[in-house]
Amino acid sequence: MHSAIDVIRAKRDGERLTEEQIDWVIEAYTRGQVADEQMAALAMAVLLRGMTPAETARWTAAMVASGETLALDGIRKPTVDKHSTGGVGDKITLPLTPLVAACGAAVPQLSGRGLGHTGGTLDKLESIPGWRARLSADEIRGMLNEVGAVVCAATEGLVPADRKLYALRDVTGTVESVPLIASSIMSKKIAEGVQSLVLDVKCGSGAFMKDLGQARELAAALVDIGTANGLRTSALITDMSVPLGRAVGNALEVAEAVEVLCGGGPPDVVELTLALAREMLGHAGLSDVDPAEVLADGRAYESWRQMIKGQGGDPEAALPRAEHVEVVTAAESGTLTRLDAYAVGVAAWRLGAGRARKEDDVQHAAGVLCLAKPGDRVTAGQPLLELHTDRPETFAGAAEALTGAYAIGGADEASAPLILDRVVADRAPTGPP
Amino acid sequence: MHSAIDVIRAKRDGERLTEEQIDWVIEAYTRGQVADEQMAALAMAVLLRGMTPAETARWTAAMVASGETLALDGIRKPTVDKHSTGGVGDKITLPLTPLVAACGAAVPQLSGRGLGHTGGTLDKLESIPGWRARLSADEIRGMLNEVGAVVCAATEGLVPADRKLYALRDVTGTVESVPLIASSIMSKKIAEGVQSLVLDVKCGSGAFMKDLGQARELAAALVDIGTANGLRTSALITDMSVPLGRAVGNALEVAEAVEVLCGGGPPDVVELTLALAREMLGHAGLSDVDPAEVLADGRAYESWRQMIKGQGGDPEAALPRAEHVEVVTAAESGTLTRLDAYAVGVAAWRLGAGRARKEDDVQHAAGVLCLAKPGDRVTAGQPLLELHTDRPETFAGAAEALTGAYAIGGADEASAPLILDRVVADRAPTGPP
Repeated sequence: MHSAIDVIRAKRDGERLTEEQIDWVIEAYTRGQVADEQMAALAMAVLLRGMTPAETARWTAAMVASGETLALDGIRKPTVDKHSTGGVGDKITLPLTPLVAACGAAVPQLSGRGLGHTGGTLDKLESIPGWRARLSADEIRGMLNEVGAVVCAATEGLVPADRKLYALRDVTGTVESVPLIASSIMSKKIAEGVQSLVLDVKCGSGAFMKDLGQARELAAALVDIGTANGLRTSALITDMSVPLGRAVGNALEVAEAVEVLCGGGPPDVVELTLALAREMLGHAGLSDVDPAEVLADGRAYESWRQMIKGQGGDPEAALPRAEHVEVVTAAESGTLTRLDAYAVGVAAWRLGAGRARKEDDVQHAAGVLCLAKPGDRVTAGQPLLELHTDRPETFAGAAEALTGAYAIGGADEASAPLILDRVVADRAPTGPP
Repeated sequence: MHSAIDVIRAKRDGERLTEEQIDWVIEAYTRGQVADEQMAALAMAVLLRGMTPAETARWTAAMVASGETLALDGIRKPTVDKHSTGGVGDKITLPLTPLVAACGAAVPQLSGRGLGHTGGTLDKLESIPGWRARLSADEIRGMLNEVGAVVCAATEGLVPADRKLYALRDVTGTVESVPLIASSIMSKKIAEGVQSLVLDVKCGSGAFMKDLGQARELAAALVDIGTANGLRTSALITDMSVPLGRAVGNALEVAEAVEVLCGGGPPDVVELTLALAREMLGHAGLSDVDPAEVLADGRAYESWRQMIKGQGGDPEAALPRAEHVEVVTAAESGTLTRLDAYAVGVAAWRLGAGRARKEDDVQHAAGVLCLAKPGDRVTAGQPLLELHTDRPETFAGAAEALTGAYAIGGADEASAPLILDRVVADRAPTGPP
């Protein structure tokens, strides 16, 4: 017999929790037999005392066991997914999912919505007329067998423990714990039932992890949990000090993703899409397929069209456009040396691209276009940023967010690399699935 | 504007809370604007990160401010109280309160009930026919002016924050924090409105604090809080490895207290009663009065009679007696070298003297009489312990608790002193009241 107080005390006093304690406390919390105040005390003890990799892996498995899992056994292709920890202008899922599907894998991309300054993939795709995010498990499996690609909301029964615990951590100052962040992310991915997973851990002002040390710690925890739960798992740590690509905002990002799928688009978006695709194809046993070729010859775009149509969307329909556009110009000539991802994310959010509360709606056309990126030569008076919104009263707040967010210098400066590190498992995957 | 999350994060990250943060979070929690799960996370952060003496003093003042205080300004004598952290056989309040009153001070002893293996003063006095624990604030003041002594339950409006926080800590593994224990104790005493306070911090198997280091830490925190809140405060640290006196259990302890008030009683009970009385009289400016004399000449007993009668009790009435008594005898001859306070407390509790849940009733006649104490010579077959209960089915459990609880050795061993240390303030009292 376990009691919540015994489990809390053990972690409070710096002990390792046993597998039985972890399984019990997660299940009892999901059922409401461990109270919110007890889980809050435990979460704070975990945050301050830490958990070992083995504890964290078991905590994740217990979260997965709190609900249903998506049965993907019947899928005839290798299954692989990508998860990003979230950034500004991060639309990589949009070109990546159909690209990897066109290379021969099945990619079930269960995604979320945006909150705060980072966008959400579902919000972006909902700017396509007709497209719907909610699919049944059977529809997801149907998309995977027919198209190989699906981007949709998680089904209701997946990881109820995480839904409850996430809401609790949000109000109790217990978000910033690597074991709790990592187990929250991985529980949802493991419950998807994929065989392998690539993580894009963002690092920089626009990301949750501000420095490389933190990002490496999170990446290692994520890879370890995946490996301990039977998934081939690896991670790239990528720069998020500058917005990714030029577009920040839902419809603006969809348009940029389509550019990439048609063989164009900003070089950083193309680079990261291909790097993540190669990582995913490696796990799926498809290393011999060159994703650059599949992108160039139009097969990835065709896969995109089918993916959008399969979920009710019209891939040829015009995307919504903002009613009001304002331009920020360069005050002087020189080289753009800095463009802060967080500030651009906040500006786009204030223009209407994001939401402050879960219940809010997003404006699909709102956002920021970055017409110059760090390293670009600019001349005085040249447009640097375009602010898009349907509500012109938001321009002032967006402009305020952008104060000091960019700098023009006299000389060229070497820009930071996009891919900062790669983290791979130190052993073969074990345990379920 | 404060938010619960900011306060939690500050303490989580090891910062000192500001006075404004402390005042706000205690008041908002009392009003229900800070949720239980938020206070649980904060309590865990306080437990693991600690609070400075200044933070703890302010936390206590904020708890006092959450409710009413008992106005004692109209009392014509110096007011002084004693608080014990709780032990086995600790009936000292019973002789001490009328004794100090007979010496010329006013002693408002707001007391609690027992939970677990330690008894509660109100439970003990309720074994006297007719005596009632619940008095109004006016009745308390009346008793203090007329008799100088009152032992009663805290009035409803006193320190609501503590009532709420104590219940929360009890289920969230956040009891064992010196700043939280000390502020809980002191908030109730400060709200009483007394001018000075003596603490009896118990140390040993039968106490909450098992070793002298912990007891000193708690005593220092208690004295510091009192001093910072305007009370003349000091503490004695006293041994609780052996039960205090011979009687453990409600009516048994009242009978022993009356023995002491009549000039007899066990030497340890007399010694501690006089030591605490001298400490209290010193704070009250009555050091010239000798409590031993007041005890010996019957004035303390007369004060007891008035105190009991003033609350509806009959001081001459026979006390309840247990229906069943069983005797534990010495298996060999020698010197009793050990009698474990915790084991005796648990035995008395199982016999019916204590309660497992707040809602339970106690048996007034149940308990344990210790017929020999460590240092006493015993011969084989001599009675060592008497077990009293109305429910003979509890004898087995009580006997089990006593297994290994005492030892008989061949040689005399020096017994530990009763008073282990004295802790005084390092400055004059400041601040309110």
